Amino acid sequence: MNAEVPVNAALAVREQFPAIPAGWHYLDSAATAQKPQAVIDAVVQAYGRDYATVHRGVYERSASMTQSFEAARAATAALIGGAEQEIVFTRGATEAINLVAQSHPRESRNRVLLSTLEHHSNIVPWQLAGYQVDAVPLTADGQVDLDAAERMASEEHAIIALAHVSNVLGSILDTKRAASIAQHVGAALLLDGCQASPRLPVDVAAIGCDYYVFSGHKLYGPTGIGALWGKADRLAALPPYQGGGAMIDRVTFEQTTFLPPPARFEAGTPHIVGAVGLHAAIDWTRGIGLDALHAHESALVADCREALRSIPGITLYGPEDSAGIVSFNVEGVHAHDTATILDDEGVAVRAGHHCAQPLMDHLGVPATARASFAAHSDVSDIEALVRGLHKVKRIFG
Amino acid sequence: MNAEVPVNAALAVREQFPAIPAGWHYLDSAATAQKPQAVIDAVVQAYGRDYATVHRGVYERSASMTQSFEAARAATAALIGGAEQEIVFTRGATEAINLVAQSHPRESRNRVLLSTLEHHSNIVPWQLAGYQVDAVPLTADGQVDLDAAERMASEEHAIIALAHVSNVLGSILDTKRAASIAQHVGAALLLDGCQASPRLPVDVAAIGCDYYVFSGHKLYGPTGIGALWGKADRLAALPPYQGGGAMIDRVTFEQTTFLPPPARFEAGTPHIVGAVGLHAAIDWTRGIGLDALHAHESALVADCREALRSIPGITLYGPEDSAGIVSFNVEGVHAHDTATILDDEGVAVRAGHHCAQPLMDHLGVPATARASFAAHSDVSDIEALVRGLHKVKRIFG
Repeated sequence: MNAEVPVNAALAVREQFPAIPAGWHYLDSAATAQKPQAVIDAVVQAYGRDYATVHRGVYERSASMTQSFEAARAATAALIGGAEQEIVFTRGATEAINLVAQSHPRESRNRVLLSTLEHHSNIVPWQLAGYQVDAVPLTADGQVDLDAAERMASEEHAIIALAHVSNVLGSILDTKRAASIAQHVGAALLLDGCQASPRLPVDVAAIGCDYYVFSGHKLYGPTGIGALWGKADRLAALPPYQGGGAMIDRVTFEQTTFLPPPARFEAGTPHIVGAVGLHAAIDWTRGIGLDALHAHESALVADCREALRSIPGITLYGPEDSAGIVSFNVEGVHAHDTATILDDEGVAVRAGHHCAQPLMDHLGVPATARASFAAHSDVSDIEALVRGLHKVKRIFG
Repeated sequence: MNAEVPVNAALAVREQFPAIPAGWHYLDSAATAQKPQAVIDAVVQAYGRDYATVHRGVYERSASMTQSFEAARAATAALIGGAEQEIVFTRGATEAINLVAQSHPRESRNRVLLSTLEHHSNIVPWQLAGYQVDAVPLTADGQVDLDAAERMASEEHAIIALAHVSNVLGSILDTKRAASIAQHVGAALLLDGCQASPRLPVDVAAIGCDYYVFSGHKLYGPTGIGALWGKADRLAALPPYQGGGAMIDRVTFEQTTFLPPPARFEAGTPHIVGAVGLHAAIDWTRGIGLDALHAHESALVADCREALRSIPGITLYGPEDSAGIVSFNVEGVHAHDTATILDDEGVAVRAGHHCAQPLMDHLGVPATARASFAAHSDVSDIEALVRGLHKVKRIFG
């Protein structure tokens, strides 16, 4: 035990992750989460014993798979406090935001209000959809400045779209205040829940938001699946986004009519096994408990920041109470070099702009190194990170 | 051996499909293909030992997964005779067609030329994109009437979009003639290869088409992944479809610039494991050989049509030389009832409009029953179908 690293209780689930061998320290869960065996097993069963298409087959296997698919929708809704029919399965959070950006009825409002720390997936879709973008500044410690947001929000804004948790800084948004700001100007509030959904309890009804999006692969689930939650009346007002099978009522060459949500937004054969795997991931995550996960990762963040602060020449970004994510730089060393040396030491961190170039511009750096935690993380990961950073300092010292 | 069913050599791969127990006859491969163990194993390895994100990680595991992901792109291109940089991974064929419908530069051409047998996924996207749709009629045996297409094609058509193989009738398109018709009027040719790609050798260069789309899950691969192939100059002319991470060059709130194809069209974390699993599926399919698969399924179609013809009161649809798909109805019995009784006998067929309502209107029926074959199919499946249909006749006789 390194004296610089305080002891932290682990959740003791690491052995459930076949992708994490002894001696390897995976600190890139904010990019994508490793998968517990329960999720892999669910995927294997869905592609094996249970496999069939959904919604269309008359035979029993297909009816049974349809039940599994819709049970996944119910579980996804329950995770965030929404109703089953308010969940649209998408390829991921990126597609979900694109769907809203293209389809939300903007009436005469042509602006969106974002923040300086948004991920590109919560910037570029609005630009492609032709919105004028306004960006809320950050506080000194890297939180969305909601005082500024309150001043900036206007009836020109169709949407206010903010990260629930920053993918770079881990900053946690005051979502209820954001909802109140949006309601005050009659804008819809979309929350990017990619980093929040695996780390925090989420309750869209309590928040009072209009849209909530997240990705399965960051939530210990499969790749290629994500969800858009939309309030029932919001979804009902959206026209179709993509056309194809499963979303139509009646097709002729002259005129086509469409099903109600969520089917209206799920054109084509869905990612059946992705949904089933996501269900397993949600069950696994809720089995630990989002409160427990948040407490676990908060303790690791506190340990990590304290340990990094003990190394001279390290700049820490973001607030002290960030959710599972710590961004930093070593003075005089490019983040890529830091990450490469850490990799040699068996420590996997992300280095780069993290799909958040406007935030990098704000921080005045081209890149940061980022350590991010998950259920399987423990103090040994922080110890390895600290050892690796001492090596970085020796090499570049 | 039922005397009504001629002997047909099987490919002897059924034991590689863990989802097909003895005594179950899966005849719904046109809806979705069952998965060989090799594909499931590849998925397990990708979620387990090898799992990491792609394109962004500095550490070795991510670099290695990026190589696997790009190797999948190369394998997908090689399957259909395209170049690696001409493959865009999509959620499926439906998304691929939507992408082209929304993004293809139509200049002053506002019409598309489809056919009466198209799947909804090759009708509705064009309608949503605001195109006027013209539909080529069918010949008496259910093939796209290319003489009529030649007369109908005009310089008002931005795109001619046709199924390479019909999902209901199995009709095989004369793709080279279709390409010649499109070129003559300066239209782009898009081929829906969902049913062709698992059943026929495909060579986009030899065909001379502009876009080719297909789905992984129909090609023995994972759900949630498909591909758009576009000629390099066609893809280069398309603006971005969805915005997000991985497709940008530089993002500011004022202006964003984009990467060249195919990255420009792959916003967000891709379906990494879907691509790896698709690679395994393509290797597996090519290991058998598309020529061998086509010969195998053609023989089964001939056997099946002959066997069904021996049962009084069965109407067969589509051409004699269809590719792996046989649609039929039992006189006086709704297709759903037929399929339900067949299910009781362990025979899984699809019944319904098959996402092709205009074709049902053309055939003058609300639905058909459809038997579709795959690599694992053999004469025992046809025998079971025939036994089941005799039971249908007894119950409804």
